Amino acid sequence: MKKFVYLFSEEKPVTASDLLKNLLGGKGAGLSEMTGIGLPVPPGFTITTEACTQYYTDGKVINEEIRTEILDYIPKLEQITNKQFGNPENPLLVSVRSGARASMPGMMDTVLNTGINDLVVEGLAKLTENPRFAYDSYRRFIQMFSDVVMGIPKSTFEEIIEKMKKEKGIELDTEFTAEDLKDMIQRFKTLYQGSMGKPFPQDPIEQLFATIEAVFKSWDNERANTYRRMYGIPYDWGTAVNVQAMVFGNMGDTSGTGVAFTRNPSTGERKLYGEFLINAQGEDVVAGIRTPEDINKLKDIMPEVYEQFVETAGILEAHYKNMQDMEFTIENAKLYMLQTRDGKRTAAAALKIACDLVDEGVITEEDAVMLVDPAQLDSLLHPQFDAVALAKATPIAKGLAASPGAACGQVVFTAADAVAMAKSGKKVILVRLETSPEDIAGMESSEGILTARGGMTSHAAVVARGMGTCCVAGCGEISINEKEKFFKVGNLILKEGAYISLDGSTGKVYHGTLPTVEATASEYFERFMSWADSIRRLKVRTNADTPHDAEQAVRFGAEGIGLTRTEHMFFGEDRIKAIRKMIVSKTEEQRRKALSELLPYQLDDFIGIFKAMQGRPVTIRLLDPPLHEFLPTDEKDLAEIATSLDITLTELSQVINSLHEFNPMMGHRGCRLSVSFPEITEMQTTAIIQAAIAVNQECPEYTIAPEIMIPLIGELKEFKFVKATVIETANRLIKVAGVTLDYMVGTMIEIPRACVVSDEIAREAEFFSYGTNDLTQMGFGFSRDDAGKFLDDYYKNKIYEFDPFAKLDQAGIGKLVEMSVRLGKSARPDIKLGICGEHGGDPSSVEFFHKVGLDYVSCSPFRVPIARLAAAQAVIKERKGQL
Amino acid sequence: MKKFVYLFSEEKPVTASDLLKNLLGGKGAGLSEMTGIGLPVPPGFTITTEACTQYYTDGKVINEEIRTEILDYIPKLEQITNKQFGNPENPLLVSVRSGARASMPGMMDTVLNTGINDLVVEGLAKLTENPRFAYDSYRRFIQMFSDVVMGIPKSTFEEIIEKMKKEKGIELDTEFTAEDLKDMIQRFKTLYQGSMGKPFPQDPIEQLFATIEAVFKSWDNERANTYRRMYGIPYDWGTAVNVQAMVFGNMGDTSGTGVAFTRNPSTGERKLYGEFLINAQGEDVVAGIRTPEDINKLKDIMPEVYEQFVETAGILEAHYKNMQDMEFTIENAKLYMLQTRDGKRTAAAALKIACDLVDEGVITEEDAVMLVDPAQLDSLLHPQFDAVALAKATPIAKGLAASPGAACGQVVFTAADAVAMAKSGKKVILVRLETSPEDIAGMESSEGILTARGGMTSHAAVVARGMGTCCVAGCGEISINEKEKFFKVGNLILKEGAYISLDGSTGKVYHGTLPTVEATASEYFERFMSWADSIRRLKVRTNADTPHDAEQAVRFGAEGIGLTRTEHMFFGEDRIKAIRKMIVSKTEEQRRKALSELLPYQLDDFIGIFKAMQGRPVTIRLLDPPLHEFLPTDEKDLAEIATSLDITLTELSQVINSLHEFNPMMGHRGCRLSVSFPEITEMQTTAIIQAAIAVNQECPEYTIAPEIMIPLIGELKEFKFVKATVIETANRLIKVAGVTLDYMVGTMIEIPRACVVSDEIAREAEFFSYGTNDLTQMGFGFSRDDAGKFLDDYYKNKIYEFDPFAKLDQAGIGKLVEMSVRLGKSARPDIKLGICGEHGGDPSSVEFFHKVGLDYVSCSPFRVPIARLAAAQAVIKERKGQL
Repeated sequence: MKKFVYLFSEEKPVTASDLLKNLLGGKGAGLSEMTGIGLPVPPGFTITTEACTQYYTDGKVINEEIRTEILDYIPKLEQITNKQFGNPENPLLVSVRSGARASMPGMMDTVLNTGINDLVVEGLAKLTENPRFAYDSYRRFIQMFSDVVMGIPKSTFEEIIEKMKKEKGIELDTEFTAEDLKDMIQRFKTLYQGSMGKPFPQDPIEQLFATIEAVFKSWDNERANTYRRMYGIPYDWGTAVNVQAMVFGNMGDTSGTGVAFTRNPSTGERKLYGEFLINAQGEDVVAGIRTPEDINKLKDIMPEVYEQFVETAGILEAHYKNMQDMEFTIENAKLYMLQTRDGKRTAAAALKIACDLVDEGVITEEDAVMLVDPAQLDSLLHPQFDAVALAKATPIAKGLAASPGAACGQVVFTAADAVAMAKSGKKVILVRLETSPEDIAGMESSEGILTARGGMTSHAAVVARGMGTCCVAGCGEISINEKEKFFKVGNLILKEGAYISLDGSTGKVYHGTLPTVEATASEYFERFMSWADSIRRLKVRTNADTPHDAEQAVRFGAEGIGLTRTEHMFFGEDRIKAIRKMIVSKTEEQRRKALSELLPYQLDDFIGIFKAMQGRPVTIRLLDPPLHEFLPTDEKDLAEIATSLDITLTELSQVINSLHEFNPMMGHRGCRLSVSFPEITEMQTTAIIQAAIAVNQECPEYTIAPEIMIPLIGELKEFKFVKATVIETANRLIKVAGVTLDYMVGTMIEIPRACVVSDEIAREAEFFSYGTNDLTQMGFGFSRDDAGKFLDDYYKNKIYEFDPFAKLDQAGIGKLVEMSVRLGKSARPDIKLGICGEHGGDPSSVEFFHKVGLDYVSCSPFRVPIARLAAAQAVIKERKGQL
Repeated sequence: MKKFVYLFSEEKPVTASDLLKNLLGGKGAGLSEMTGIGLPVPPGFTITTEACTQYYTDGKVINEEIRTEILDYIPKLEQITNKQFGNPENPLLVSVRSGARASMPGMMDTVLNTGINDLVVEGLAKLTENPRFAYDSYRRFIQMFSDVVMGIPKSTFEEIIEKMKKEKGIELDTEFTAEDLKDMIQRFKTLYQGSMGKPFPQDPIEQLFATIEAVFKSWDNERANTYRRMYGIPYDWGTAVNVQAMVFGNMGDTSGTGVAFTRNPSTGERKLYGEFLINAQGEDVVAGIRTPEDINKLKDIMPEVYEQFVETAGILEAHYKNMQDMEFTIENAKLYMLQTRDGKRTAAAALKIACDLVDEGVITEEDAVMLVDPAQLDSLLHPQFDAVALAKATPIAKGLAASPGAACGQVVFTAADAVAMAKSGKKVILVRLETSPEDIAGMESSEGILTARGGMTSHAAVVARGMGTCCVAGCGEISINEKEKFFKVGNLILKEGAYISLDGSTGKVYHGTLPTVEATASEYFERFMSWADSIRRLKVRTNADTPHDAEQAVRFGAEGIGLTRTEHMFFGEDRIKAIRKMIVSKTEEQRRKALSELLPYQLDDFIGIFKAMQGRPVTIRLLDPPLHEFLPTDEKDLAEIATSLDITLTELSQVINSLHEFNPMMGHRGCRLSVSFPEITEMQTTAIIQAAIAVNQECPEYTIAPEIMIPLIGELKEFKFVKATVIETANRLIKVAGVTLDYMVGTMIEIPRACVVSDEIAREAEFFSYGTNDLTQMGFGFSRDDAGKFLDDYYKNKIYEFDPFAKLDQAGIGKLVEMSVRLGKSARPDIKLGICGEHGGDPSSVEFFHKVGLDYVSCSPFRVPIARLAAAQAVIKERKGQL
């Protein structure tokens, strides 16, 4: 039979901290471990996370088995504490606190002083000879119970307190006398009865179970669900509940409560950091009614307690080998530890702490690598808003935090305006309904991008992340009038030229200009990353379409390019004309002529990229998007373009009509273009090979060996067909040039069918690169442009718990990848395997790609450090058997 | 080492007819078997199909090994015939004929009289004392060699012959004298030299290899490729080449050549059927220059030869246990058999022959079931054009043969006009650019449907096949002016009311009215199908959306409904208004109100269907298409609809805009609608359950147990969510009604991810029905509406050899299905498995579904007999180890 309850002091079926956390939650595990190493922890028991999941399985009912087990543990606790639950002569009061596996600060509920009632409070007053304390505890309990368990708004109690303060002419809660508090309790109970239609519950057992159930329920409240989705915490983990004998910080001036970190969580400095309040209970510290004191002041007030706390902090840091975040209470000058957990910290602090702990000999470099959350590194590389200014500012709107960083500038509404204003030296923010490839130049000229539509993987988001430009996407609150050049949010109208600020790390939009601070890579960063690099097996490449992106990525540690999207180069003014000529061509001959105009541009592009990468491997993907993406959609441009292409407007319209697709995502694109128009492939291959030859000659210190990637392959014969064009073209050029040049031909695996027949494709393909963006779309059968409409309903109903475009769906899409890897290797054991979808920069996905045996991941330049660290952590987890 | 050549009389590594055909092709196998059973076959050898595939593998070169082996066989043949290749004294001439595994009549090439040259012809003249014959043979060889091997147009030779006929004042080839023919040879050789720039080849070996290579090449000619795609014959099979000693039907009046069937291929009557020509070679019979004689006339001319031929025909039919199609030549009153193969026949003949052969004791019922091609049955159930009229008519256009049958009527261009004209008693043909669900009423009112756009699985095609209505789709030659109500094809303009005829079995369109003959199910049909039914394991259900379709399907043998598309019922005038109200609803309350208006309609629909199916199982799919499909796209309708919905035009436009999707196929549809709007699911479940209860009460002889199918599931939690709504609704209604009612809840598997996680989904789903249409689209990553643009390029380049929407792609999509079946059964061993995509009516796909262990296939009513037969054949093949 499953055991659902454990005393803190009781032996557990597991001992490793991680496994203990799974069973008891973070708080329960901490209390258990602190008890185990002899720290002063008030006794108590933990109801496991499994009890919570059972509660939900049973349809939100605490079943008899669990109920009985909890009831069994009350006498045990009474015995240890030598007090009795509900006995006014010698009452045991308990705190009931949530505690999930992963820390979710403030998301779930806590009730203190459970077990108090009209009789107990009298007994407590007598026993402690401290009636003020006793009544204070009772009124607190009524407040918390009413709010947390019964959902009576907190504010209604606050109103009573405020009213009483006015009546008494006092300012602080501590100024209330015992009599005042008795009066307050009466008023609270009246309020309770008015709201609930029955008197405040007096039975301690009834109180206890109501409270436990409330904590279980709080696992499913809206803010907890939102938090979990943000941090990728599974719904089915559940929360544990800790029932612990109360110790009281509100017993007078030798009592108090506080929180502290073993090191400074902002800077990492090795110095106790925190605050405390005298004569208070837990919630007072965070409530902000009284201003807490700096933890170091405790030295003056209670030097012995302070010494003991410093020592305890040292013991805990040594035990957990990590900076700790602790809660404590002092009851009548005696210290009690109520919680310890790994402290949250800024990225800068995380790096410093990791390095310092190594230098202090506490941990190994490998341990250090595990101490930093890869996702955090992102913020280190982008400018940030000044924290003080940010705290004061009120956002005017909030969208998706699509690409991190901080940007201020003047609003513009078209890419052309962005380019023009930027040329005149102004900083601009491009505001668009959504961006398209035609906006690329405007996006490059902008400090930041704000779109009203589109998700985390919309065009704006993907391109902005690639550029490292700040972007807030899908900000539905703003309505844009592009024609008259203004946007509206609420009642505020912002015209072209107005100043706004975007916080790409939170998705918030501000009116006016907020001061920013530049990112600086610290000494700690370089040192830390070198450890990660020495551990990881996965190579990390970047997705880069320009020499500029490529150079930046190399600075961030990229070891090659995993994806160059050749089409991103096609939107320049001259090029777009040539590609349009190619599209409206009626014969192969016309098409070849138009392509020959494009060739010099592509050649330049590739020469630039090869040089920027200095001999590192470069994968270039052949043309991917459907051709209609290169034609105008705006009717007013049509005539002009027709003229420039030397065809009639009717002809142009016919071409546009003939290219119309019902489902462009599943249309004539990728290698399908190469099958229909091999001359495009010939031109692109020519550019790649000639560029490689040119750079090899100009820079003999590099050995350029291009990797030519054929997109959207679903079948071996399709691959063979396109490969034949590539090889024929390449070999001819190499022969003519009289040089030797190695090159590879491989494919993107992004079609479900390709996963199933990967063994066949691998017979011909020298490498696979998983295009997990499209594979996710096709595998799930939903288009990311359209999924926004219903995915919210899915999150709300917990059908999906995370965005599968941001984090790989390992249970489904991951299985397709795994199958493909297995089949691919069976046919070609030395096949080179990589991934170039958005997931290449997501830590949990990187871990998965390590596990299934890819050779590299490729991600946008700013995510390269994240991938490097995640890859190292994957190795360490693997060594520890945690993968 | 592989052996590439076999004498007809030589022992083969295999003996079973089928395996022999794989190696030697149908012709080679027939010649070998006829030789084996002692029939008079001129000696020869077969170059295997493997030599052909080797030829292509080697880049269209006959490699040295094969060349040597062929050269080795010439002396062997010389020895057997006692003649010498190229020796004028005693010349051996040979025919060189193609012969693939599957019969591809007329698709590939043949050259007779190979080995003849300027010297040999003289020797032959002397030896046979028949100069006319000798020169006739030579001129034929020059003609065939030039055409087949060198590609000099046939017509240029015909022109010379015609010119000479005029010069000589004669009408028939046979009237040419030897001298005439010598003259003709000179002229032919001059023509050859003019075309090729070199004299006509005199070296018999050179002639032979050039001819063999030409036959190999003919495997890859355009008409062969088209034929193979039509009949699903793989490109990699290759053709064999038969080199056979010539016998001459052109030696004079005791010589001749002919073709004959052992039974009448049109009716199946047991009587020799065929024709012959005296003093002629093979091609004369088919060329149509001279009118051949009925085979039975041979009795009068050469009674002994006739007797021998009748006997031979009997031997062959007994040997092959099937009706045979034979070629023979009579040389100087001696009969030679040149070919035998299973004869092609009409569906009616196929059934009669199969039944007769059983009655004659030649074959078992099981053998009989294998004798009919399931695809043929289709034509039996639809009206056909009168064959004589058809032969005389010239089509004005040709589209895809999308739904078989013959239809004549007056052209209309809108669904509304179709309904109106049909009501006034006229027969109409609906002509549309493409159809949409809104056209459904018009389609039902029409005799036939003609569309300018769309493929074999376009809306028009799918719906028409479902209805059994004749349809020609994707007829790109016609251009439609819907506004002015006419269409143009070439220079012909046909206005509304003009008469046209459609042949849905060939895709041809005729101007005017052709006489039709009704289909009648013969006694043979019923008898034959009962044998098939007694053998098959797979159940056969139908896809039916109306009681009418359901009744028809039952008549065709459907054992249940595998798919009822509830949305097809939504397009009626009153219903569409209610569903539009539902769509424009702003609150759940409004939506529920609109849904309550729909409920009575749905209830009626389901009552009708349950009654029509008389207690057979019925699977009903919940709403599937995206909601925008129910809104008008035509701007002019908008205002009217807005008024009828009691909202402003702006509001309606906003709703339409908000529902716009980039990739509707991958958008907000299927179960995703049920997640967003559970009230739709509630309404549909209510209609289903109430209908079942009502019919159970009204018709106690049936036990209605509805199978409720949730479409587009990709994830277990998604299924659970929707299932919960269904079950809650259903159980409540059942409880209220105080009855017992069994029902099942299952899902369509049509999303690739669903295949991968089928074990999880099967934990909750009681049945799976494979939606192979969507699974094919998502698995291949191409939308069937868009694939038309590039699939032709794929066929042309042999990347795909068949339409994966018509015939299941077993290598890819089939693997996903297999995986899903395996996983699904692992989690729920008794899970009910079916398939309801278009593939349910395709014989090769049915075979696959049998093999992977489904319980049933479901197809459109007219395809039910096809599926029944294919399912039976699958069992027989399995027993024989051929699956």
